[in-house]
Amino acid sequence: MSTTDPVIWIFSTGTEILQGHATDRNSPTISGRLLEAGLPTARHVAIADRADALQEALTEASARADLIITTGGLGPTGDDLNRHVVAAVWGRALVEDPDSLERIRARYQRRGRVMPESNRVQALIPAGAEVLPNENGTAPGFYLEPGPDGPRATLIALPGPPREMAPMLDKEALPRILRRFGVERVRFRAINYHTACIAESAINELVHDLFAYDERVNFALLAKMSLVDIRLTLMARDEAANDELQARWEALVRERLGEYNIFGCDNDTLESVVGGLLRERRQTLTTAESCTGGRLAGRITDVAGSSEYFREGFITYANEAKMARMGVMPDLLAQFGAVSAEVAEAMATGAREVAGTDWAVSITGIAGPGGGSPDKPVGLVYLGLAGPDGIVHSRRHHFLGDRADVRHQAVVAALDLLRRGLLGAPLDPVLPAQAAHQDR
Amino acid sequence: MSTTDPVIWIFSTGTEILQGHATDRNSPTISGRLLEAGLPTARHVAIADRADALQEALTEASARADLIITTGGLGPTGDDLNRHVVAAVWGRALVEDPDSLERIRARYQRRGRVMPESNRVQALIPAGAEVLPNENGTAPGFYLEPGPDGPRATLIALPGPPREMAPMLDKEALPRILRRFGVERVRFRAINYHTACIAESAINELVHDLFAYDERVNFALLAKMSLVDIRLTLMARDEAANDELQARWEALVRERLGEYNIFGCDNDTLESVVGGLLRERRQTLTTAESCTGGRLAGRITDVAGSSEYFREGFITYANEAKMARMGVMPDLLAQFGAVSAEVAEAMATGAREVAGTDWAVSITGIAGPGGGSPDKPVGLVYLGLAGPDGIVHSRRHHFLGDRADVRHQAVVAALDLLRRGLLGAPLDPVLPAQAAHQDR
Repeated sequence: MSTTDPVIWIFSTGTEILQGHATDRNSPTISGRLLEAGLPTARHVAIADRADALQEALTEASARADLIITTGGLGPTGDDLNRHVVAAVWGRALVEDPDSLERIRARYQRRGRVMPESNRVQALIPAGAEVLPNENGTAPGFYLEPGPDGPRATLIALPGPPREMAPMLDKEALPRILRRFGVERVRFRAINYHTACIAESAINELVHDLFAYDERVNFALLAKMSLVDIRLTLMARDEAANDELQARWEALVRERLGEYNIFGCDNDTLESVVGGLLRERRQTLTTAESCTGGRLAGRITDVAGSSEYFREGFITYANEAKMARMGVMPDLLAQFGAVSAEVAEAMATGAREVAGTDWAVSITGIAGPGGGSPDKPVGLVYLGLAGPDGIVHSRRHHFLGDRADVRHQAVVAALDLLRRGLLGAPLDPVLPAQAAHQDR
Repeated sequence: MSTTDPVIWIFSTGTEILQGHATDRNSPTISGRLLEAGLPTARHVAIADRADALQEALTEASARADLIITTGGLGPTGDDLNRHVVAAVWGRALVEDPDSLERIRARYQRRGRVMPESNRVQALIPAGAEVLPNENGTAPGFYLEPGPDGPRATLIALPGPPREMAPMLDKEALPRILRRFGVERVRFRAINYHTACIAESAINELVHDLFAYDERVNFALLAKMSLVDIRLTLMARDEAANDELQARWEALVRERLGEYNIFGCDNDTLESVVGGLLRERRQTLTTAESCTGGRLAGRITDVAGSSEYFREGFITYANEAKMARMGVMPDLLAQFGAVSAEVAEAMATGAREVAGTDWAVSITGIAGPGGGSPDKPVGLVYLGLAGPDGIVHSRRHHFLGDRADVRHQAVVAALDLLRRGLLGAPLDPVLPAQAAHQDR
């Protein structure tokens, strides 16, 4: 963050947010757009629709922030207080805007109705503010620059419904913000590199010195169960410098993590990456799932166009189904049990043969909460992979967490195993030695 | 809100929230739980993982709030700052908690790994704070009461991942909060009644007069794609009065909605309700999915113990698989196409026979974005149901939305169709006439 960046606070008002009944979807949208324009947000604040609480919070914010954006509280009902509180804090009168009143009336007319008198309040705007017309609802927003007296902050009031807020943000609010704060072009750039099945702490050991390596790069790790993201936020002075920074850092991150360990970036998912590899190679895939009960195939078919490489999948919870559908031999089940490396491999090779595909990936395990034993505890999962050129592989995992966690981790690990198989990579992740950079 | 209620602020830390890359799911959860205990939240604040910003915000909050709850920032990496900043603001040293260190080490050991030294920082706790053990992750939380010097606010630090945060909130944090602020019992009581596959507007017509029917009852409709919840928040003066209110309102809501149209309440899901019915009846189920690619079976097997009634499922994307696995006749596919009532019924009857189950439910449709035609547009989905006593049924849907939306709605509708079949209810929802109560 540069020291000349304006301090931006975003307010959302709505009792339902503070009661836990609704999430604030507007603030992330606004922050995302601002960041694309190079303006980081300092704070999100959600506050109930109460005049005293709102006035206290806006008074405080108006002295500390350069720009305040509020969403919500512009409706026609008694708990819509924003215009009144803003007018009070900024020391302005509320005046009726004839154009806005006319727009609201016309909106009702187009639907063959008469505007209720209660909607008239929505045409009230603090004196001196610019009206931001609402093309998707009745409540106009407004843009209020500080005057000689009163708070120093600029205030923008936007409506609460996201489908009204977002177009007004893009069309009306952002151009004024960029003009007000002299932002000429995008400076920030965020890139997320994705890893799977590698512990956050192991990644941290490989990159721990990068957190404060370059002041133009915000470096962060974001862990979400089996997935860890490496997020770079680049803040060079212009696009060309960001390009150069991105190239250098991408090389650095890839070198630190080692080959095959970053599976994609930004919008890539394991299933989209695997799908891309299958499509490139014109190969096909089937799945054989026990404890994940279709979750793996569900992820694979989330990808549009997956019917090109995915023809069918097997969900074989019961041993009888494992035998009948994929030819798993009864003595294998008797000798090793359904949750074993042998059965995982037999499921994969059997499914591949029956479905006539190039690849098959299988999952058998104990998702819990019941069904565990000292020998085979809850969380024990075997993955199997069968592929062309005689590839047959299995891997043992012991996942922690509840039933949903175990199933989720098993699906992620199976997709990553398949990805490694498709790439011809070592099927178990290999991390680079750490000595090279840890001692400098 | 009573004037003696403590002022509660909830902080979430994480640059990704302020960059618009993530939404804060924790604060609504915490506020919802607090409200059930009669404690309203005054403010949510989201702030970046930057020591200066966090220190400024917590210093301010510590002087204004009675209780501050933070989530996130307790990980092992360089951008996890919460424990350090809290210690600084409350004027406490950070001390290593041997029990926490032992728990973290043991957690790694259970996975056959050695704790990386970087995780040691997670055992640091502000002096005088109570440790809140984390049963689902490495980072313990802590509970810090104000001392004679320093800020007046009580602080609770919880981890960021929701599956770690939520159990710690319920088990460790809430009991301490209730004790600290002298809350003796739950006063608010929230109940959610669930419906599926009925339009919100249709439900609204049936209940529109209930929104302001009784001042002790907050009545709300919450719509989420195919699911609409009817939420009652009861606010009677004591538990006995709430019991009475609940009995009266439950009868009222059920009468308004009509038989079979409320499938459950609170933690019930369609899959748990269907599972319960199958278990009661000692019946079994199989699934045959085309466009949902395993999502239906995935939902069914989310339920612990589902192996009792779910033995196997079929994912047959390709026509060849529909023929080979479930005996769908080639001429049926040729005459009506894969997306047709005839094929949906053939998939259900075929899967039921092959798997030897009591019930089979099938889905065939066009999830998009590709594959649609004027005749069979994206979103067209046929469901099939086959059951005992010769039940064979199909239903046509045209769902709106993107690929994920269509798949989600198809799964919900299939589960609801099966539920109605199990109950012996009319397979298409029947709503009560509205005249009876609309004119009074």
